Amino acid sequence: MSKGRHQCGKLGSDHIGQVVHLKGWVQRRRDLGQLIFLDVRDHSGIVQTVCSPEINETALQEAEKMRNEYVVSLSGTVVAREPENVSTKLVTGAIEVHVHEMTLINAAKSLPFQIEANTDASEDVRLHHRYIDLRRPDMQTVFALRHRVTKVMRDFLDRDGFLEIETPMLTKSTPEGARDYLVPSRVHPGSFYALPQSPQMFKQLLMVAGFEKYFQVVRCFRDEDLRADRQPEFTQIDIETSFSSTEEILVMTESMMKLLLKETHALTLAESFPRMTYAEAMDRYGSDKPDTRFAMELVELGEVVADTTFQVFTRALEAGGIVKGLTLAGGADKLSRKEIDALAEFVKPYGAKGLAWLKVTEEGIAGPIAKFFDEDQTKALLTAMGAKPSDLLLFAADKSQIVYDALGALRLKLAKQFGLIDETKFNFLWVVDFPLVEYDAGAKRYVALHHPFTRPKAEDEHLMETAPEKVRAEAYDLVLNGYELGGGSQRIYERELQTRMFQLLGFSEEEAKEAFGFLLEAFEYGAPPHGGIALGLDRIVMLLAGKTNLRDVIAFPKTASASDLLMDAPNEVALAQLLDLHVSVQTK
Amino acid sequence: MSKGRHQCGKLGSDHIGQVVHLKGWVQRRRDLGQLIFLDVRDHSGIVQTVCSPEINETALQEAEKMRNEYVVSLSGTVVAREPENVSTKLVTGAIEVHVHEMTLINAAKSLPFQIEANTDASEDVRLHHRYIDLRRPDMQTVFALRHRVTKVMRDFLDRDGFLEIETPMLTKSTPEGARDYLVPSRVHPGSFYALPQSPQMFKQLLMVAGFEKYFQVVRCFRDEDLRADRQPEFTQIDIETSFSSTEEILVMTESMMKLLLKETHALTLAESFPRMTYAEAMDRYGSDKPDTRFAMELVELGEVVADTTFQVFTRALEAGGIVKGLTLAGGADKLSRKEIDALAEFVKPYGAKGLAWLKVTEEGIAGPIAKFFDEDQTKALLTAMGAKPSDLLLFAADKSQIVYDALGALRLKLAKQFGLIDETKFNFLWVVDFPLVEYDAGAKRYVALHHPFTRPKAEDEHLMETAPEKVRAEAYDLVLNGYELGGGSQRIYERELQTRMFQLLGFSEEEAKEAFGFLLEAFEYGAPPHGGIALGLDRIVMLLAGKTNLRDVIAFPKTASASDLLMDAPNEVALAQLLDLHVSVQTK
Repeated sequence: MSKGRHQCGKLGSDHIGQVVHLKGWVQRRRDLGQLIFLDVRDHSGIVQTVCSPEINETALQEAEKMRNEYVVSLSGTVVAREPENVSTKLVTGAIEVHVHEMTLINAAKSLPFQIEANTDASEDVRLHHRYIDLRRPDMQTVFALRHRVTKVMRDFLDRDGFLEIETPMLTKSTPEGARDYLVPSRVHPGSFYALPQSPQMFKQLLMVAGFEKYFQVVRCFRDEDLRADRQPEFTQIDIETSFSSTEEILVMTESMMKLLLKETHALTLAESFPRMTYAEAMDRYGSDKPDTRFAMELVELGEVVADTTFQVFTRALEAGGIVKGLTLAGGADKLSRKEIDALAEFVKPYGAKGLAWLKVTEEGIAGPIAKFFDEDQTKALLTAMGAKPSDLLLFAADKSQIVYDALGALRLKLAKQFGLIDETKFNFLWVVDFPLVEYDAGAKRYVALHHPFTRPKAEDEHLMETAPEKVRAEAYDLVLNGYELGGGSQRIYERELQTRMFQLLGFSEEEAKEAFGFLLEAFEYGAPPHGGIALGLDRIVMLLAGKTNLRDVIAFPKTASASDLLMDAPNEVALAQLLDLHVSVQTK
Repeated sequence: MSKGRHQCGKLGSDHIGQVVHLKGWVQRRRDLGQLIFLDVRDHSGIVQTVCSPEINETALQEAEKMRNEYVVSLSGTVVAREPENVSTKLVTGAIEVHVHEMTLINAAKSLPFQIEANTDASEDVRLHHRYIDLRRPDMQTVFALRHRVTKVMRDFLDRDGFLEIETPMLTKSTPEGARDYLVPSRVHPGSFYALPQSPQMFKQLLMVAGFEKYFQVVRCFRDEDLRADRQPEFTQIDIETSFSSTEEILVMTESMMKLLLKETHALTLAESFPRMTYAEAMDRYGSDKPDTRFAMELVELGEVVADTTFQVFTRALEAGGIVKGLTLAGGADKLSRKEIDALAEFVKPYGAKGLAWLKVTEEGIAGPIAKFFDEDQTKALLTAMGAKPSDLLLFAADKSQIVYDALGALRLKLAKQFGLIDETKFNFLWVVDFPLVEYDAGAKRYVALHHPFTRPKAEDEHLMETAPEKVRAEAYDLVLNGYELGGGSQRIYERELQTRMFQLLGFSEEEAKEAFGFLLEAFEYGAPPHGGIALGLDRIVMLLAGKTNLRDVIAFPKTASASDLLMDAPNEVALAQLLDLHVSVQTK
């Protein structure tokens, strides 16, 4: 923004003949003796500059000292390149800057890796030197996109009358949910704040406070073991409204996501996002966040295989389980016996004891279990699975959850392996009608599938005490290309219903009051019906940027062990600090 | 946002004859037997509704059950009020809604305090029931303003090419600065994250990463003892740019603040913000954040009193101290002897041993120290202090810092007490040329006045080792009406200069490397010149909202003991949580 400073990447034929002042980094230096080319880079882009004795002897001498990533200041005249030297690689390739004056601002050591679009440096090295990694054009683009995404969503919500209201980061540890990050209190010895897993309580209280339309782009924290699509701190577009129907919330969210695609990818999504019940998503895709960019759906085979002599199938059905299959088109030719065996290993972590398979031939079926199917059964099977010669059929038979998990994961794996996914697609999907609770065999009690403030569907409310697992929630998840972008629900706003919910989750009256008494009390002072949604900003940006790792869209991410390699955090602190906080370290 | 729902506060003569659907809270109920008036409130405002047997018998019966703050849904017809019933108190006072249908959505107990513009409920009660407190129209206005302020600043920075980039909340505890909030790590036993006091390190690293123009509206944390204008967590507009001069940063910030005043108060500030050196601010106002909405400046009296026989003055001067005075116009009539003595008590906490005073009379001066002044000295004194008969003159004589602190505080106190402040003014001021360091007698070393990354002024850099207290920093604070809105500086970007700064602050080489090695290393890979500013959002909103307490502009603030009274945080947590985090509580 320096006055009179020009942007490297914005120079072009319009500037020919003008004297320009540039500040930036040496991207590349080519020394031809009495002629030195320096490509100079700033935030806007790159331009070629030229130093020679004919232009300016002193500047040439200065240019001799320059190395990659030195910070320089220069003045020069924009000159059209000779036709044969015009470069199409650079936006500024039609011109170059003849340098009259050059000053070194700051030198640079040899970089641990080069500033290139595709680096082969290890991620650890990149994270340790994140300030170099972030200079790569790819990363500059990602963070410009992230800024834009947030801006578009904020502007949308502002236009729609939402107020952004900030909620505390130093708050209270409550049961139900992931593990909290805790913060010891200095003023209250033995007491702790918790960092918020989401502003759920606060946004509901804001509804009780009459704000009606709240949003916040807000940092949230979960002390969980990490995966590529999880970070200990993440950013959420948190939305809550009063007096709005589920339909209104879904339509509003759709409009916002469509605007986002239009603004960032010039893509117009005309259709409404499809909606699918949780039950249907599990049945067809074995997942509550199905990737619908490709078919290869799970096929229900209960009836088809019930009369076969294959006991793995029939016993699973007799035990109340299910049998489902996947058809991998052309898979019989693509996969060797050994590779098929590897797929059986792949599904084991999901609890599947094995993976039955068949190859489809011109004659019918072949493979270890072909003998258990008679002609009619074979015909029924091939019809059900839409199978053609040279297809590979894969089967799982077990309790339904195991079959869903195993085949759901296998479906994704095979789709990636065989390039079945159209990567240009943005397939949004609403998954609705989630179960309100699920039984946790470990804890021997019901736990909320979303959270304890989610409203049961009105027509199922009467089942809360008698058949809790049958109660559906007034909840919805937004899925994009197989990723859960976020979810929400209508909330409970009556003290009595909330109390029933806590009872269902096994809270004593005292426990409920201790943990959530403030909310129960708030519901007695005129709480409006309310609901909302929370969307994961990091995941949205990751998908819009075409990345597969959250770390590529977070400026200073943590590693899988929740470390910041750049700053070396977490680290040991002074004993005096701990004394102030009334805590001590307990290590074994 | 419910379809077909109307906004209470938006109804007017245009709607006469229309059927409207309203949802909201019962603000007030007047029961005249067969005629019930319910004022219904939603986020947009209040409208009067009428139930009577002539309109609808069932609705009237329903209305009989309603009480204040019940949540209701109703349908009715908008009708013009009789001319004699038109109310000018309500925006919607020209009409009323004749109710055909009314449904109770949720009941409410009697409120602990009423929803009124000015409540006399204690702050503890208000904070405990914050969701009720926030319903007050005044609070609704504050948070709409806060949203708008943030939006205006974000839009301004976006237009100016700044990218908002998020930085971590779980970061590293470093020395120099306030006390950190710490977060024990589960994965790394005995290690701790710190919550950021500001994203200072990260924003500098983003400059090294070539982003050039960064901003963030970001939560920051300081575990300090609290005052009315401090909260343990606060929000900062954090800005950093590369290659920009101080002049450019000040002008950019001014443009942003002017836009803010225009957008929120329709106020056009034509002039540039005045600038004052730190030395001048202390000399004239005894403060580095002077309230310039009124004069009553500190008068330098060293020469005037040097030859008097009043030893309190002359000895202070001989010891290298200063003598300064304040003129309270008309104060001789306003303050009794007892009240003047109370002022002497008031300045004691600032280290002042006493407060000398004189009353100006038609004849000259009167009071305990009048006898020490001869005629010429009296004349010189009255001239220097611009004094007129019936003015009160107040004096402090001590080390300069004590005189500044005592008279600076006294100046503000008297101005408030005697209504000298024009509350309609928005007096911005830049204070520049702060000292780089000050000597901390307790720690027996120099400490940074801003922070250790602040750049010394180029012309003073050579004094860093020989006369550190004389080195001025390339730093600036933005002051509004006596509040520091924020501050910034040009930063050090050379490893060698940063190392000298750490040496000046008494860091060993090893300590500097341990705490800030990553920054020193980053400066070796092509760090550009950079600088920025951080503005306190809470304070800006407080001043724009005409409030004097930060808690009135934070939705869920903490008390002076850093407690959240609503949620009851911080609180005790389960032992299992602490075991997971490898810490235990140590209380005496």
